[in-house]
Amino acid sequence: MTDVKTQMLERGRRARAAAAQLRDAPAAGRTRVLEILAEKLAAAEADILAANARDVDAARANGMTEALIDRLSLTPARIAGMAQAVTTIAAVPDPLGVETERWTPANGLDIARVRTPIGVLGVIYESRPNVTADAAALCVRSGNAAILRCGSDCLQSSLAIAALIAEALAEAGLSADAIQLVDTPDREAVGLMLTGLDGAIDVIIPRGGKSLVARVQAEAKTAVLSHLEGLNHTYLHEAADLETARAVVLNAKMRRVSVCGATETLLVDRAGAERLLPPVAADLIAAGCELRGDAEAVALVPQMKPAVEADWTTEYLAAILSVRIVDGLDAATDHIARYGSGHTEAILTTDAQAAERFAARVDSAIVLINASTQFADGGEFGFGGEIGISTARLHARGPVGAEQLTTYKYVVRGQGQTRP
Amino acid sequence: MTDVKTQMLERGRRARAAAAQLRDAPAAGRTRVLEILAEKLAAAEADILAANARDVDAARANGMTEALIDRLSLTPARIAGMAQAVTTIAAVPDPLGVETERWTPANGLDIARVRTPIGVLGVIYESRPNVTADAAALCVRSGNAAILRCGSDCLQSSLAIAALIAEALAEAGLSADAIQLVDTPDREAVGLMLTGLDGAIDVIIPRGGKSLVARVQAEAKTAVLSHLEGLNHTYLHEAADLETARAVVLNAKMRRVSVCGATETLLVDRAGAERLLPPVAADLIAAGCELRGDAEAVALVPQMKPAVEADWTTEYLAAILSVRIVDGLDAATDHIARYGSGHTEAILTTDAQAAERFAARVDSAIVLINASTQFADGGEFGFGGEIGISTARLHARGPVGAEQLTTYKYVVRGQGQTRP
Repeated sequence: MTDVKTQMLERGRRARAAAAQLRDAPAAGRTRVLEILAEKLAAAEADILAANARDVDAARANGMTEALIDRLSLTPARIAGMAQAVTTIAAVPDPLGVETERWTPANGLDIARVRTPIGVLGVIYESRPNVTADAAALCVRSGNAAILRCGSDCLQSSLAIAALIAEALAEAGLSADAIQLVDTPDREAVGLMLTGLDGAIDVIIPRGGKSLVARVQAEAKTAVLSHLEGLNHTYLHEAADLETARAVVLNAKMRRVSVCGATETLLVDRAGAERLLPPVAADLIAAGCELRGDAEAVALVPQMKPAVEADWTTEYLAAILSVRIVDGLDAATDHIARYGSGHTEAILTTDAQAAERFAARVDSAIVLINASTQFADGGEFGFGGEIGISTARLHARGPVGAEQLTTYKYVVRGQGQTRP
Repeated sequence: MTDVKTQMLERGRRARAAAAQLRDAPAAGRTRVLEILAEKLAAAEADILAANARDVDAARANGMTEALIDRLSLTPARIAGMAQAVTTIAAVPDPLGVETERWTPANGLDIARVRTPIGVLGVIYESRPNVTADAAALCVRSGNAAILRCGSDCLQSSLAIAALIAEALAEAGLSADAIQLVDTPDREAVGLMLTGLDGAIDVIIPRGGKSLVARVQAEAKTAVLSHLEGLNHTYLHEAADLETARAVVLNAKMRRVSVCGATETLLVDRAGAERLLPPVAADLIAAGCELRGDAEAVALVPQMKPAVEADWTTEYLAAILSVRIVDGLDAATDHIARYGSGHTEAILTTDAQAAERFAARVDSAIVLINASTQFADGGEFGFGGEIGISTARLHARGPVGAEQLTTYKYVVRGQGQTRP
């Protein structure tokens, strides 16, 4: 057995033991961990920045692009944001022990469905050091132990943050084994996590780009809670209000182009296209967005490039928007069913019946009526934070916050019933 | 591409198309399918019995054991039971479209969580022909399309039942592709289903013995909703009522020894063992149950055989019970945490505080207080039926009925909000 394997299996055993302790810990104790952690993140700003500088220097020396360097870099403001995120999660209502249903069937048993933690989560992420704090906070709030594996690029930053997490757990009287950061950059560790570490990991959560998620889905021997692409559509119904359409489409595409909730394709009703598309397109072009349209769209907005088939299947994550003219609501939902990724879609309309028909027909995790697709976010949903947005169909869809990281058990109270 | 592969991929495409139709079908239409199916099952008794006789004759010729022949065999009473099960599921409240939560976060959006079908289920089972009707009924109730693959031993019986399902769907105006039975006994079909048929299958549900479930878990490239063993414990707390203990333990073990809710290990508090164990054991022995106990248990009940370590890890599914004396509640829950399969556990006690402590500490799908573990059943829970009992930690735990075969989406209603 390799050293890495021995070490990882030992991590798994310790995480499993810590999970039982964390599961039984009262809400107040888990809240206390998060409060202490938030304080420590603020107090340790200099140490975290120093560790991050080592990561950034090494990344620059290795020729990392400036866009990725930016993702990796911490600043005093970003550390404050990290501490604030932990504080926000500390304030989320504790999900554990909550009875979500209670009923008595004909046999007279009193059946309650009660939220419990999943157990041990394996979180695999890339070069965003803040995920270390975010994921730890969501796991503590939901009573799950976790084994975290960050990208090697942000290992020094993550180690500095993980040391604070360990201190916060210990000061609140909990085992520091509850949240463990894998401290070796050896890639074998990822493969071992995907095997489940002899049953010690209940679910793997990949948080990162397409290639990471694809590898995890292909190799994992455990359950996987993953998000894939956000190939999101905004549909301008013929009865859309023009000013709403201008504001919402601009926001849905351009607020941040690199987030999974960004709109990638605009569908426009033929009946409303002449009224709606030119002004909406003008705003986008003025904001620096490239437009790629079908022939009818190009005819209305000559600055557009012609779209090709690949444009309907591409998550740009960039200031590019594909535009298609459709023949009514059902054609729009058919396009979404064919090309969408099941993440987030929006309709803009003043026709309430059309809005409800769209919501019923579209089978995505999030369907918005008259609002920006960029609201696809656990914070905006009031979850206090999220570990990702699930496009899976089982367990959790949409933003995955603390509550979505729980499962349930049935507690059945009887008076000596036997089954006939 | 093999013929089987071509055929199975085509099944997948047709199931996916039918799933969209079924998802949008009103509850009344899906109820109508089930009502028609129940009538047809009753009316086609002779045809089903004839088909079943062909299966049974072939199985006998192949040397199948009588226990398995019994599982395979249909009788007029069993066909009536099958029809009744479909009628019961028809009467379950329709889970689709139900809003399970609705709230407005600070951004003013009106967020609703609404139940939707999972999509296409792949159900792989063995030689119980009734599963064909049960699974179809649960899928129709929950709006899921399904590809069913039965054991080759019950193919003729299942084909007869599947023909009725197809008729019922068609008569209610729905596509018969919604519920398809794989009509080839070729084992390649199972392997293909486990690949997900090019994304056409959302989840595989294995319903059968350990080796089937293990193969599915090892090979599936899709999500799996599986149940493993029911290595269930009943714990006699020192404050258990003797008459309750006698009745419940006897029922928990002996009502039906082959079901996954049967108790396999009895844990008895040392402080109550002398009072409780001898009479409880006497009832079990009188009912034909073999007891295997640790040294202290054997000392109290000399007819017991000595238990070995393997007895704590064996799901007997037979008239055998292992018995262990434990030193109080925490020792009992420690034993369950170490040896249990996370399925169903019971405590018998008159001490309400002890009961609640047990319910909190035991991390199984179902925890019962003063009731038989044989209540682990979707029908007993009021679900109208079940496709199995999940010991997974994600999505669904415990009995999996129509509601547990749904997922959800968020419908978010705004008034033109953009995200800051």
